Amino acid sequence: MVCKNCQERPVIKLTNSNIYLCKNCFIKYFEKKVKKTISDYKLIEKNDNIIIATSGGKDSTSLLYLLKKILKGRKDIKIIAIAIDEGIHNYRDKSLEFLKIFCQEHEVELKIFSYKEEFGKSLDEILKTYKGIPCSICGVLRRYLLNKKSKELKATKLATGHNLDDEAQSIVMNYFKNNIKISARLGPITGIKKDEKFIPRIKPLYFLTEKEVTAYAFLKGFMDKFNECPNSPYSYRGQIRDMLNDFEAKYPGTKHSIIMSFLELLPVLKENYRNNLHAINYCVSCSEPCSQKECKTCKYIKTVIKL
Amino acid sequence: MVCKNCQERPVIKLTNSNIYLCKNCFIKYFEKKVKKTISDYKLIEKNDNIIIATSGGKDSTSLLYLLKKILKGRKDIKIIAIAIDEGIHNYRDKSLEFLKIFCQEHEVELKIFSYKEEFGKSLDEILKTYKGIPCSICGVLRRYLLNKKSKELKATKLATGHNLDDEAQSIVMNYFKNNIKISARLGPITGIKKDEKFIPRIKPLYFLTEKEVTAYAFLKGFMDKFNECPNSPYSYRGQIRDMLNDFEAKYPGTKHSIIMSFLELLPVLKENYRNNLHAINYCVSCSEPCSQKECKTCKYIKTVIKL
Repeated sequence: MVCKNCQERPVIKLTNSNIYLCKNCFIKYFEKKVKKTISDYKLIEKNDNIIIATSGGKDSTSLLYLLKKILKGRKDIKIIAIAIDEGIHNYRDKSLEFLKIFCQEHEVELKIFSYKEEFGKSLDEILKTYKGIPCSICGVLRRYLLNKKSKELKATKLATGHNLDDEAQSIVMNYFKNNIKISARLGPITGIKKDEKFIPRIKPLYFLTEKEVTAYAFLKGFMDKFNECPNSPYSYRGQIRDMLNDFEAKYPGTKHSIIMSFLELLPVLKENYRNNLHAINYCVSCSEPCSQKECKTCKYIKTVIKL
Repeated sequence: MVCKNCQERPVIKLTNSNIYLCKNCFIKYFEKKVKKTISDYKLIEKNDNIIIATSGGKDSTSLLYLLKKILKGRKDIKIIAIAIDEGIHNYRDKSLEFLKIFCQEHEVELKIFSYKEEFGKSLDEILKTYKGIPCSICGVLRRYLLNKKSKELKATKLATGHNLDDEAQSIVMNYFKNNIKISARLGPITGIKKDEKFIPRIKPLYFLTEKEVTAYAFLKGFMDKFNECPNSPYSYRGQIRDMLNDFEAKYPGTKHSIIMSFLELLPVLKENYRNNLHAINYCVSCSEPCSQKECKTCKYIKTVIKL
């Protein structure tokens, strides 16, 4: 077995094909695919002020590195990394230490915001009284902070490290939970441009699988050494992830097919739920965008967090 | 625990709720739901000539029994049962024996068409040389015969015993295989009314789960005693079925949510793929409707079956 392009020793077999690539050719392939996604879906525009949501994990570290590299010559575009410290002992503390060093080395400004400082309690503290699924409350709080802080930093785009596996999971989760409307908010770029309260999200790693991102991060030497979040086994997403991995192993290309099915539907979904997408409310307590009168974060603050 | 309606001893807990029902109340609930589906989706119209696709299995036997019962007073509507004898030793031969007696008892005309007679070989014989997935070839041949024979019998509707589980499986299979276009042909009623070459299909058991249909057939005394088709473990559908059963057990309501998600999308799918749906070709060899120049059945006949 040799690299398809240069006959070197291969390091990876591409998902859903019989192509083997060596280290250098795989890195080229990976970076080209990210650039193509940015260009095909117009993820980045002139004068963009891009906030990258980072965690120290393989996905967001690869994204940070790549956006910095791709946008090197662009004087009109600004990049800042932000990280949310949920306060998960022996997990996030470690990944943030790695992230700080990484950002210093790559000369990217990093701002860290913590649940403890913003809400008064760390996730570990919250979970002492909150007995629901950890990811439910944590996801709400994290998304809230990401949007709020992006606005404060005057971002025009919020870039996240979501990969093809993450997106396939979200698509299936929405289908299995009858949340089709919410699916209209997925895709490589989402958000209402004219609404300055909601920062558009972009996902440059959209067409790369978890396996490919892991390989890229490993080959580039910034693979994270941190385990999975200790709370993640409880999640519905974890169950969907395992199921999709099973199907992918038996029927290679399944995840890719899910993404293709979804992208075929997406314009129709957007058109159909256009009114619904535009009818964003603003929370009566904090004015952040939300789907009801009061946002979930304010509800959690009043009920679970203040307990 | 007592029946929600009449305090009798319950025989079933309804899917996705905490409602227990006794035998009589469950039978009433079941039949009401079938009638509601027929009425809500206008499955049956005046002067319909309905062909029921039967196999002797629990789904199609329940359907046959119920349509006969529901349409008892309708002099304008005609019902005939047809069955396809694929030629699967120790399986279909047994279920057809049961079906013949059932149809005699319930005074429904039954017509049986066999692969052997129509194509020259039984499925068992075909599988001696065909090494692909049995369900792939068998599904093509069965659908071909059902449509062809329905036309010969001048049917206006072809009723099938598909239940909620079958449909949820088809929806997920299409998503996982990037066959979104084909999904536009699912739903409680499908087919192009103006095209006399394609008989519209109706699925009166659409909103009843596998578990409910099984319970109904058992309680009515026409539960089949025949095992699963010996070829079915090889099928992709079988894998999807097991996966959905796992999710349903952990997250009750999953299958129902899939159906609801799909029905929310269906009008949009039909609108979007309208041209595609109407652009049915007719096979150059046999004139049956198909998606390519020559239908899959004719291709199978020339390659696999004539070997």
